[in-house]
Amino acid sequence: MQDISNPALAQRLQHKLDHKTKPVGSLGRLESLALQLGLILNTETPQLTAPQIVVFAADHGLAARGVSAYPSDVTWQMVQNFLSGGAAVSVLARQHALALTVIDCGVRHHFAPPAQANAGGGAPRFIDKKIALGTADSSAGPAMSAAQCQQALDNGGDVVRQLPGNALLLGEMGIGNTSAATLLLARLQGLDLADCVGAGTGLDAAGLAHKREVLQQVLHRHAQVTQPLDVLAALGGFEIATMVGAVLQAAHERRVVVVDGFIAGAAVLVARHLAPAVIQRCVFAHRSGERGHGLMLQCLGARDGEAAQPLLDMGLRLGEGSGAALAWPLLVSACALLQGMASFESAGVAGRA
Amino acid sequence: MQDISNPALAQRLQHKLDHKTKPVGSLGRLESLALQLGLILNTETPQLTAPQIVVFAADHGLAARGVSAYPSDVTWQMVQNFLSGGAAVSVLARQHALALTVIDCGVRHHFAPPAQANAGGGAPRFIDKKIALGTADSSAGPAMSAAQCQQALDNGGDVVRQLPGNALLLGEMGIGNTSAATLLLARLQGLDLADCVGAGTGLDAAGLAHKREVLQQVLHRHAQVTQPLDVLAALGGFEIATMVGAVLQAAHERRVVVVDGFIAGAAVLVARHLAPAVIQRCVFAHRSGERGHGLMLQCLGARDGEAAQPLLDMGLRLGEGSGAALAWPLLVSACALLQGMASFESAGVAGRA
Repeated sequence: MQDISNPALAQRLQHKLDHKTKPVGSLGRLESLALQLGLILNTETPQLTAPQIVVFAADHGLAARGVSAYPSDVTWQMVQNFLSGGAAVSVLARQHALALTVIDCGVRHHFAPPAQANAGGGAPRFIDKKIALGTADSSAGPAMSAAQCQQALDNGGDVVRQLPGNALLLGEMGIGNTSAATLLLARLQGLDLADCVGAGTGLDAAGLAHKREVLQQVLHRHAQVTQPLDVLAALGGFEIATMVGAVLQAAHERRVVVVDGFIAGAAVLVARHLAPAVIQRCVFAHRSGERGHGLMLQCLGARDGEAAQPLLDMGLRLGEGSGAALAWPLLVSACALLQGMASFESAGVAGRA
Repeated sequence: MQDISNPALAQRLQHKLDHKTKPVGSLGRLESLALQLGLILNTETPQLTAPQIVVFAADHGLAARGVSAYPSDVTWQMVQNFLSGGAAVSVLARQHALALTVIDCGVRHHFAPPAQANAGGGAPRFIDKKIALGTADSSAGPAMSAAQCQQALDNGGDVVRQLPGNALLLGEMGIGNTSAATLLLARLQGLDLADCVGAGTGLDAAGLAHKREVLQQVLHRHAQVTQPLDVLAALGGFEIATMVGAVLQAAHERRVVVVDGFIAGAAVLVARHLAPAVIQRCVFAHRSGERGHGLMLQCLGARDGEAAQPLLDMGLRLGEGSGAALAWPLLVSACALLQGMASFESAGVAGRA
């Protein structure tokens, strides 16, 4: 994948920012964001077009082991809720005019044709990329086969190739997927599981202890698996694997990838192990309330030892892409400021004394 | 001023939030925001209408003592920039359809009539509420007289009474006003000046040391002044005093007050000393990069010992209301989620296992 760092363009963007009518650096994080968006879109005048929020949905065999506070049926019920407009991400997508697409990557439910027909006219779109009715239980064997994993990656690439615009906002739904994301983080980064496990949708202390124990068994069961794609297949998530494919394709096309929370972050982590330059295209929307997310952001920094700097920190722990949607207007602002602000010279404003 | 706490309404709002299709509490800070907006607007279905961003501008006699990195002329030049649409707040107000009004509270410049004629049709509005051509130098005497201070408070109330809508976003412009805000914070809260002084628009170490020394002289000069209105008059800021009047009026009318950064925060601090219930109507937009702002937010908490919880933390230190404008879509989201999300029951989604 292409390295998009471009010192000459970066310098021109920084010069432009520094000559706007404001003290140098006074727009803080928005300035580094504007710089990054300029580099991703390879222009001094970045403009975001036709932003797409995609919710990748699937079920997890591991959920049968009681690692989530909610039953697996919530996955397909929430897919219906996304499509009928009642979920948080539905509301936020409408607010910010984000086109919403829901992908069935492997939900344990046969959706009736009406849900699939529901395209066009700003309504959310449903795409069937179902690999199976949920993954297998990763405490008993690999969550998916190598062929299924490859199919999911291909599906993600296909989905992105069909989408217009230059920005992809990642969302997901899948009861049990905080567990899969935790396992990926722990194994790929060689971290202590205890530091990575959190309450997900809201486990109590006993539930959390049980989850920790089950996840430890899973890691033990797959102790020999260390290569990124093997890890992905073993520890699973059809929605995560499909998202990895989508991230790789979007990054290849130099789209801006807006990463939601813990589960989307896990997909980016896998993608980064496959193609390090992916990270240059990623904007991290928020620091979530999920315990391991701070550690994950530490691993997702653009440079070694530098944590990824999320835009928001609001204690969100919902997923769906809700954090990505909430952060979206900040990306629009960064571009608008770069475009619309006057320079000291053009506005006739004096510089420093 | 009316105490708007209302346990029955708060309970109904919380019940509504808890039955939306999401894990309880998973929208984090947005949920407490939705609750607060419901309480301010006294309804289970808060809707924000005709939001107004008002930039209060004035000059400071103390600026002649070299406490800012920029010359005083930048104040009037930036007012022109706000009106011609090239400032950061101009760009952000357009992005979020915020009506922008610039108030001359005491700028050291005679604005030509054209600037004042420039009303109507979504263009920024200019209102002349000039008290004088800048305050007096507070290191030599009071920044303003008691009569001027009262006039500024009245002006702020008048301005708000004329504005439509139910939300006021605070912005300001005034070379030297970080100094005035610092002095107000230190004196009103009895804090050590050294903990309150920061680099403002970007002083270097020597400039900062000089500023600290000058501000210490000012505090010493007014050592006997402790009553809020006397402190405001002595330490000054026509834009700050006008903003205090605006905040009091907006709070009285139960408008939502969106507080920008350090200078707007100082105005709210004064207003709170005059009417504690003001704070119930305030949403703190962001934690700025200005050194004393964390301490100020600590003083602005709704309850003793509890810091005000700002929505954003992006290292902004521009003023103008830029942080308030950037945070605005989060307030809109909080209302939209309360309104637009389905409940578990209405969406047919299962609850916890």
